[in-house]
This record gives sequence, C-alpha cells and structure tokens, in this order.
Amino acid sequence: MTGSLAVVGLGPGDRRYLTEEAEAALAAAEALYGYGPYLDRLPSRADQTRHPSDNREERARAEAALRHAAQGGKIAIVSGGDPGVFAMAAAVCEEIERGPESWRALDVAVIPGITAMLAVAARVGAPLGHDFCALSLSDNLKPWEVIERRLDAAASVGFVIALYNPISRARPWQLASAMARLRRHLPATTPVVFGRAVGRADERVFVTTLEEAATAPADMATLLIVGARNTRLITRPGRMMSLVYTPRAAVEASA
Amino acid sequence: MTGSLAVVGLGPGDRRYLTEEAEAALAAAEALYGYGPYLDRLPSRADQTRHPSDNREERARAEAALRHAAQGGKIAIVSGGDPGVFAMAAAVCEEIERGPESWRALDVAVIPGITAMLAVAARVGAPLGHDFCALSLSDNLKPWEVIERRLDAAASVGFVIALYNPISRARPWQLASAMARLRRHLPATTPVVFGRAVGRADERVFVTTLEEAATAPADMATLLIVGARNTRLITRPGRMMSLVYTPRAAVEASA
Repeated sequence: MTGSLAVVGLGPGDRRYLTEEAEAALAAAEALYGYGPYLDRLPSRADQTRHPSDNREERARAEAALRHAAQGGKIAIVSGGDPGVFAMAAAVCEEIERGPESWRALDVAVIPGITAMLAVAARVGAPLGHDFCALSLSDNLKPWEVIERRLDAAASVGFVIALYNPISRARPWQLASAMARLRRHLPATTPVVFGRAVGRADERVFVTTLEEAATAPADMATLLIVGARNTRLITRPGRMMSLVYTPRAAVEASA
Repeated sequence: MTGSLAVVGLGPGDRRYLTEEAEAALAAAEALYGYGPYLDRLPSRADQTRHPSDNREERARAEAALRHAAQGGKIAIVSGGDPGVFAMAAAVCEEIERGPESWRALDVAVIPGITAMLAVAARVGAPLGHDFCALSLSDNLKPWEVIERRLDAAASVGFVIALYNPISRARPWQLASAMARLRRHLPATTPVVFGRAVGRADERVFVTTLEEAATAPADMATLLIVGARNTRLITRPGRMMSLVYTPRAAVEASA
C-alpha cells in the first residue's frame, strides 16, 4: 500500500474561501498535520488524527508528514492561504529532495488556495490589476540586501508590490525600512493597503499612504499591497473606504 | 432598492476550484455577465438571465453590468481565475470611476478565485516558493519596452516570473522575444513550466527549459512560470514529470 501526501491551501481562514477540491482532500485524509491554529479551524473527526506544530517548524512538520505517508498513510498538511506562496509546499519539496528515495515515489498533490494578496486585493477593489510582484520581507532566509535590491527593482519598473511577513517580534524594523526604501522611488501619497484575517471575525483591512505606512499597525499575519505610480483611489458616497485599483494600461515606468 | 455587483472568480475552470463564497455569489445573482465560454461552465437556471460577450469586450461588459446593477439588479460578472489578476475587477473599477455618481454608490464585491499561476504551480510542486512576479505579456495596453524593462528587472534580482497572456494570433512574436530577453539573465537550462486549463478535460501542463520555451506550444490561455537561478527539479522514480520548486532560502541574486 502506498501512502499519499496532500498539501492543502485553506485560504485566508474563513470556510467560505475553501475550494471543493480542498474540502475533498481534507475529508479523504486519515491524518492532518499543520500549524496548530490552522488545524483548529477545521471540524474534528474521530477517525482522523491531528498533529499540530508551531509556526516555525515547517521543516520538522514536512518531515513528519512525509515519514507518515511513506508508511502508507493518507496524509494532509494544511497551509494558510495558498501552499505555494510563502507557505508549506516549498518546505515539503525541500524535504522530498533531501529525504530517502521512497519519499520521491510518494503520491504528492498540492491543492491551491486563495493566498492573502488575492483576498486583501478583493476587499478593496483591484490593486493588483496590473503587473505585480510578491515578496517576503522576512530576512530569516535571505539577506536584507537582497530584499532591498528587489524592492528597488520592483518599484522602479512599475510593479505593484505585495509584501508578506512584514513584521514580527524578532523582526521589528524591516517594515519601516522597506517603506523608506520604496519612498526613494514612489510618491509619499502612493496608496498602501494593509489587510489581515480576511473573512474572519478579527478581519482588519485599511488603506493608507506610503508616508504613513511605516508606522501603521501590522503583525506577522498582515499583508501589504504597495501601489504603483498609477494606482488610484475612487472615493464613494457614504462609504468609509475608497476603492483602490491599478488600471490595466501602464503609465510609462519611471527610470 | 439598490442593486449590487459581484465580480466573481471562477478559478481555472473546473468546479472543484470554486470557493463556497463564489458559489453563493453566483446563486444569489439574478443576472450573469461574462465571457461566453465562462458562462457556459455554469449550470443554467430559469430565474437567472445570461449576458455573454466576447473576450475583448471587458469595457462594454463592465458598463452593461454596472448599468443593470444601477437599475436595482443583483448582478454577477464572472471572471476566469481571480478577478483581480489580469481579469475583470480592474475593468469594473475603471468604469466605476468613469461612470455616473450612482455607480460609485453601488454595493460592489470582488470574490477572489484561484488564479492560473497558483493552479499551474500546484500541479508541478512549488515553483513560486520564493519571491516572484506576475506580468502580462500583452502589449495591447502597455508598450513592449515597458515589458522588456520589467523582464530585465525581475530576472536580474532573482524573481520567479509568472507570465500571463503569452501569445495570441494578433501577438505571435512576443513569447519568443520575451524568452530571448530572459536568456540575457538566466541560464538556458532554467526550468519553465507551461500550463493551461488546469483541472479541465483538456488540461496540459509540462516542464521545459528557457532554451526550448520560445518554440513550445502555447496559446492565449497558457500560463508560463519561468524559474529563478535557484529553481530546482526533483526527478521521481516511475513518473514522467519532475517536481519543480524554488527553495525558500535565496541564493545571492546576481548583479
């Protein structure tokens, strides 16, 4: 009997964002691995074991799940958002490459989900309506200079910029530093969207400017979208929040 | 009575990729607007009118749907993939800004979906596992020089590159030209993933190299993912297709 491993995207949290394919993969699993709070979102079942782990234990979690699958288990690892975007799919691939040959023979499926930038963008309009990039601000796995070069490149050619992992207790200055860096290329009034926990009870989404963004409240689960030069606001009668969108046609990129 | 407009992401096509939120938005609509083949994917209902339009008529489609909503209708515009990524949400925002004040007062909701790059990435592993960008190769709405500058910037700082709208009858040379441009920065052996119609009967996903990509079969609905320098292949016993992934840790970006 050969085991299988599904790496399942839960989307931003609320059940309404789950795809049918993700529901089916979760239903078929006999064991669920994942970050504890993600597992807590799913209804518990007597015939399904749960293996919660901490946030920074991606590698150990991937190893444990692969070992379990290699013993013949039907395993699912859950991932917030989309597993392929700053989440579990790459960690699983790293372990498959590093591990024994039997892991490379396993049935492995990645089940896509709504990643945070799509959920946050949808809440405010269409800020990702033109070319964009997605960048993790965490310098745990890459030097800060690489992040700065990428911010410079992205802003100078007119990409909208989605920023994952903007800040944490261990990384308190990176967000402000990134905003200062982007100010070299973009006007102070450039719209910046902050969003977290879309669709959940503690959802918070707001729109500010590049100038104000350095000191706006954010945490590890916050996703930022920094507009390009042509990103626009539409004020709306009787509504607090403007629509934010980037037109499909490019303005000439600077520099 | 005030109308409403939902811009609904259908994902890559198969029903399994639809979220519960998208299902609910489609069920609540009394009129559906969209590109004909997208509407054809949905079960027809006697109490719901359908307003199909051609592929290039985004602006007219958005206008018609907004006009209908402003008359009090509960309207949904369907969009392939995610409405916010090279799809209908930006076109709708453009018309909301251009149109009468009453359009800005409407209830407008964007319902996110699985965009093509997430679906294609999931099929092959985790090629978007590190920083990446998404770029439309269509020069209908931006000059080709802007596209070239963005390709140069993205490849030179180490972004994985997802390319939408790579080729069409009216744009036959752009794909080969983009691949040649990227060859200035990246080795000939860089993995390139081609994917279309993920989850549908005519799904086609394959992995090739940057050298071969210029002449590989593609059409308007094909999504390309061009790896970065550190994107890797894992060959697997007894399987045709390798896993493709980009490790979470950056190698030093070139230049």
